[in-house]
Amino acid sequence: MSIPDAEPGIHSGAELERRVDPEVAGRLERFYTAVAAADLAPLWTQTRTLMPNTPSPATRPWLWEWSTLRALAADAGELITIERGGERRVLALANPGLDGAPFATSTLWGAVQYLGPRESAPAHRHTPAAIRFVLEGEGVWTTVDGDACTMHPGDLVLTPGWTFHDHENDGDEPMLWFDGLDMPLVIALDAVFYENHPELRQPVRSRDHSLQEHRGGALRPLPPVGAEREPVVTLPRASPLLVYRWADTDAALDDALSASSAATASVEFVDPTTGRSVLPTLACEMHRLTPQAITPTTRRAGSAIFVVHRGSGSSVIQGVRFHWTQGDMFVAPSWAAVEHESARGADLFAISDRPALEALSLYREMVEPERQTVTSDFGSHR
Amino acid sequence: MSIPDAEPGIHSGAELERRVDPEVAGRLERFYTAVAAADLAPLWTQTRTLMPNTPSPATRPWLWEWSTLRALAADAGELITIERGGERRVLALANPGLDGAPFATSTLWGAVQYLGPRESAPAHRHTPAAIRFVLEGEGVWTTVDGDACTMHPGDLVLTPGWTFHDHENDGDEPMLWFDGLDMPLVIALDAVFYENHPELRQPVRSRDHSLQEHRGGALRPLPPVGAEREPVVTLPRASPLLVYRWADTDAALDDALSASSAATASVEFVDPTTGRSVLPTLACEMHRLTPQAITPTTRRAGSAIFVVHRGSGSSVIQGVRFHWTQGDMFVAPSWAAVEHESARGADLFAISDRPALEALSLYREMVEPERQTVTSDFGSHR
Amino acid sequence: MSIPDAEPGIHSGAELERRVDPEVAGRLERFYTAVAAADLAPLWTQTRTLMPNTPSPATRPWLWEWSTLRALAADAGELITIERGGERRVLALANPGLDGAPFATSTLWGAVQYLGPRESAPAHRHTPAAIRFVLEGEGVWTTVDGDACTMHPGDLVLTPGWTFHDHENDGDEPMLWFDGLDMPLVIALDAVFYENHPELRQPVRSRDHSLQEHRGGALRPLPPVGAEREPVVTLPRASPLLVYRWADTDAALDDALSASSAATASVEFVDPTTGRSVLPTLACEMHRLTPQAITPTTRRAGSAIFVVHRGSGSSVIQGVRFHWTQGDMFVAPSWAAVEHESARGADLFAISDRPALEALSLYREMVEPERQTVTSDFGSHR
Amino acid sequence: MSIPDAEPGIHSGAELERRVDPEVAGRLERFYTAVAAADLAPLWTQTRTLMPNTPSPATRPWLWEWSTLRALAADAGELITIERGGERRVLALANPGLDGAPFATSTLWGAVQYLGPRESAPAHRHTPAAIRFVLEGEGVWTTVDGDACTMHPGDLVLTPGWTFHDHENDGDEPMLWFDGLDMPLVIALDAVFYENHPELRQPVRSRDHSLQEHRGGALRPLPPVGAEREPVVTLPRASPLLVYRWADTDAALDDALSASSAATASVEFVDPTTGRSVLPTLACEMHRLTPQAITPTTRRAGSAIFVVHRGSGSSVIQGVRFHWTQGDMFVAPSWAAVEHESARGADLFAISDRPALEALSLYREMVEPERQTVTSDFGSHR
Repeated sequence: MSIPDAEPGIHSGAELERRVDPEVAGRLERFYTAVAAADLAPLWTQTRTLMPNTPSPATRPWLWEWSTLRALAADAGELITIERGGERRVLALANPGLDGAPFATSTLWGAVQYLGPRESAPAHRHTPAAIRFVLEGEGVWTTVDGDACTMHPGDLVLTPGWTFHDHENDGDEPMLWFDGLDMPLVIALDAVFYENHPELRQPVRSRDHSLQEHRGGALRPLPPVGAEREPVVTLPRASPLLVYRWADTDAALDDALSASSAATASVEFVDPTTGRSVLPTLACEMHRLTPQAITPTTRRAGSAIFVVHRGSGSSVIQGVRFHWTQGDMFVAPSWAAVEHESARGADLFAISDRPALEALSLYREMVEPERQTVTSDFGSHR
Repeated sequence: MSIPDAEPGIHSGAELERRVDPEVAGRLERFYTAVAAADLAPLWTQTRTLMPNTPSPATRPWLWEWSTLRALAADAGELITIERGGERRVLALANPGLDGAPFATSTLWGAVQYLGPRESAPAHRHTPAAIRFVLEGEGVWTTVDGDACTMHPGDLVLTPGWTFHDHENDGDEPMLWFDGLDMPLVIALDAVFYENHPELRQPVRSRDHSLQEHRGGALRPLPPVGAEREPVVTLPRASPLLVYRWADTDAALDDALSASSAATASVEFVDPTTGRSVLPTLACEMHRLTPQAITPTTRRAGSAIFVVHRGSGSSVIQGVRFHWTQGDMFVAPSWAAVEHESARGADLFAISDRPALEALSLYREMVEPERQTVTSDFGSHR
Repeated sequence: MSIPDAEPGIHSGAELERRVDPEVAGRLERFYTAVAAADLAPLWTQTRTLMPNTPSPATRPWLWEWSTLRALAADAGELITIERGGERRVLALANPGLDGAPFATSTLWGAVQYLGPRESAPAHRHTPAAIRFVLEGEGVWTTVDGDACTMHPGDLVLTPGWTFHDHENDGDEPMLWFDGLDMPLVIALDAVFYENHPELRQPVRSRDHSLQEHRGGALRPLPPVGAEREPVVTLPRASPLLVYRWADTDAALDDALSASSAATASVEFVDPTTGRSVLPTLACEMHRLTPQAITPTTRRAGSAIFVVHRGSGSSVIQGVRFHWTQGDMFVAPSWAAVEHESARGADLFAISDRPALEALSLYREMVEPERQTVTSDFGSHR
Repeated sequence: MSIPDAEPGIHSGAELERRVDPEVAGRLERFYTAVAAADLAPLWTQTRTLMPNTPSPATRPWLWEWSTLRALAADAGELITIERGGERRVLALANPGLDGAPFATSTLWGAVQYLGPRESAPAHRHTPAAIRFVLEGEGVWTTVDGDACTMHPGDLVLTPGWTFHDHENDGDEPMLWFDGLDMPLVIALDAVFYENHPELRQPVRSRDHSLQEHRGGALRPLPPVGAEREPVVTLPRASPLLVYRWADTDAALDDALSASSAATASVEFVDPTTGRSVLPTLACEMHRLTPQAITPTTRRAGSAIFVVHRGSGSSVIQGVRFHWTQGDMFVAPSWAAVEHESARGADLFAISDRPALEALSLYREMVEPERQTVTSDFGSHR
């Protein structure tokens, strides 16, 4: 029989007693055996393991270099033909803390997807929701429930949960993009549903329609007279705007910088009809660091994946310094202390599970009063 | 004694009876006298007057010509000096149907305001909410609760209810703008409160801050870490974006036109954080008619004021045709049949009380299946 | 020509000038004439009349005695037969401040309705919303969009805007109830629509269904599996609970009193699915005063009608004392100072337009630090 | 090197190719090795494992008998003294499908807690939220952020996330209750925070205050005049009503049964101010089966724990029949087919993670058109 691990000091009295009084020890042993045999478990032996003062994530801070990602994605483009299963030629960030699972963090999926010239990824849908952030290439469009969304470097494209989506590359060069999904979270909730579209390509009903409808922001096209006015629903939903152009993002960051004296600016991509995060489970942000900028040391409940969109710099996460340059991807676990800096300026794209935590009343964040002590560089200890 | 007016046919039986039976007639007369003496009133004699099948507004369709408005505003600029009460040199549209009240419609205030070079209108606040739509001039800024908003022709500027506001003209030319307020509605609700600012000019804390914060639309600046996240409140509130630039409006109308095959495009100015109308009581819209465009014949509960921003054309309202050109202002009463047309293209700015009616669950609208018969031209019967 | 009334003192400078300089006076006179001829009105001569510091309602504090109301209602029951127009035998409170309009306050309709034994009031609907508070009688039911709601003394019954409703008296005695409507407000908004039901009595689909569904409060019947879950809509809507039983109200007031040391308790009847007021335009409340209780002196934007449900006492409104006893009805205008007291205990039912003002961001309320000086008794000055 | 498991048939072409062409096979092997070495994982080899058509939960349908639970809880009461760690004498349901974790399902914690006479469980708080459903005993009260809530059999008591709570047994008998928590979900989100109260017992500020404030349901105590009116916030929050009395639940079930011809009735415990589930993450329901009743075969995304409050019967879950009687607890995994029946009538209390799934837009449910084939009885295969 194995008595569950005691927390240090928690029932040292009992330990003592058992050593001293064999009869009590015997009864306790029989009791714990009976408990386990009945498919039960005591709380008191593991309270603080289950409920530590602050989160103790298995996710480890980690970084993947673009040079490696790019090379392996290109290899996959060549080797993993459609016949070899390459419908979705996706290489997932597999956090070493997560027991071999192909997950970037405990709740987030991050990956590089490669779509060769004249290739297409067939239409399907699933309850996990996804965002695409274009890293390289031109000529691809993603159709989301009938609306064909064109894609360019720096664009953010949404494929909300349970929307049919397929990707088409009409161009002559490959496209590479970052895939961000809430899949680990949806798996943890046992809520994955999946369905192929009856056709390889779904019918295209419109092109960049969501952009035409919603890009205007504060100027909303009026619905036809007599159209039922959309109720202001507070149910969670994805943004009806499916594409966020880099030019708009770039301009918004410039505006934000010029409006303040700060050395950094951050924008969140939001649903323009509600001001909420783009997806019920995922937030997308872009952070601009001007040269020499350094961000405060922050902690946030929930995890994040960062994709370096432009420039170079480094981040300190839980005392380890991660140097990064364009295309690199790195992750911050829940409640990790995080700070970013850049000598020559950089743009960091990020996704996080903040909306999910907020929806469940679990989100919190704080700024640490002092900077972290850097104990090592990532890579040096690999 | 005066028996209240009977609805036609409603108690003709009673009429008959009274004629026939003098005793009944006498009792009825005494009864109605007693009712009136007790500060009571019978419903049954006036049900359909109080509750007609559709609204029977006192507001009349009407038009005010810019040439007259402009000339009288300039006269006021000269004659009505500050010493003569000209703090707010405002000429209000006075609908002839409203018994001499200075109201454009039963719920809306519309006016032209004139602010001369180097003049200022002192700071105050009131529960009626206002919008300003700039008609002519440069160099003016309106400070709204500390945020100085610069104003240019075609810009829409909000001064929400109970915000301190003052106008300053730093330039060398006069500015004229359209004032739209919900004042008649707030008066009908006995809810007017008013207060002067302790100083003539309120302190300026920022310049065009609301633009910097909210112009981005779908890209929202992130709040500082640890800042309390704004709850998604469903209480009515004004838009935090206070200025809507003409360039943005113009572009949004172009986008809307290019996205469809329609000959007209309409946008509503909305709160970019919620997608709702700019004020709890007022909606602001801009309608673009391409050359030869004609809009469907529509009816809407609640009234509207139109300001011709650009071009010329005509509108048919309840069978009367109103010809208009740049700067003209005209009104549509509740449930009036309205259609607009333009031979050479036009932009119509409009305000309405739709948000108030929606908030009270009273809004409705419809398209008439057939065009109106035009019975006369406005002006011909003046 | 009539120059608009000047506010006292506002342009005494101008007055002076005109007296002194006949040329200026002439120009001003010509200017004001031209303004009026152009259907315009200057703001500066009437700013403070339009926008006083606090509301200046035309509604007067007033009281109607039950003995008079009851007697006249009974007379109407006898005299005003169906043939004489008595489909809705309703005597409306006509506030003497409102120019003969049959309105209790500027926004509220209050009335006594009388339905004789075996009589019925035919089915119709209108955009003005109504509440019924039963004063006397048994055996009546009101059908609201197919749900037959039984009515007993002290019950509150809703007939939300645009719901078909008819009243049937199956019993052997008359029933009298208080009718509260938002009709003056809806008229002010030019938003009255009205429609008779194709049949005199609408079909009854259920009996007290809303009670069965929603009386449970914190225990909500689960919808059938697969039923679309109702979105949490923030559009204004009426409560789906249509009847509030007196027994529940009585118990809630007792609970509220026993839970605190206060001498008064007040409850609002709310939509049990949202916690909001029962109608988008009207709030219904019940106030219990224990013997010797006196309420603080309060002011509220918006007006109210009070119906004495039980007991006797008096209220001071704007310095005038109104003595009341069971069945009496009285009104408080917007921003009037109001306090209630009772020597032997009382229950006051009240309706107000607070939800409308809140929806338009116009509501406010305050407690006066000191009691009012009573200058007279109502009645003594009639 | 281990190539990740292929899905059957997915790249049999590739398999074939490798067998035939050793050069390709070598390149593929080198490629997969490089991918793994770079902390990456291919999606294409495991798409359908990660995203099956419907959820494939590790949670197994399971049942724990009250006789065992009761006996072991009593043993714990005797053996696990405070000195032995018994601050929270809690025996957790440990689902055999979950690798030894003390969790009832993948997202839910279920347990029996035992509090002996004159014992108390000290005050602490944690982000996981809890509900307590009283199984046996009297004389205990749970203090939640200062409000002491008395507990009786059949009562539901909430201790929302991050509220301080402690339990006190002032009586002479032990109390046993069911503990339901969202702890596995909060752990999966790496969002557990925990804090002890500075004192063993937090100060008691009120007794059953939430009941006095909110039990009334559709009759809400009015806030003091001038109190800031609570905005209708759409942020997730726990119900302000902390206790739901069995008498109310019992009556609501009776009402629901009498209002329909169905043989079963179900109520959800809701926040009386919003109509939403009691906690952002957990729904609580009570289901009443009349004698001979049988429920439709349903599937729901997300898992549930059932506690038999009264009576006996059986449930078929994924083809296995579970017989149950009072006090037994059993669980249904996500998307399992579930039906309940009872020969002599029963009340089933249930908690589920539905609000969490709804908040993330992941909830769905359906009724199966046909009953399940029962393949075995639970217990027979143990």
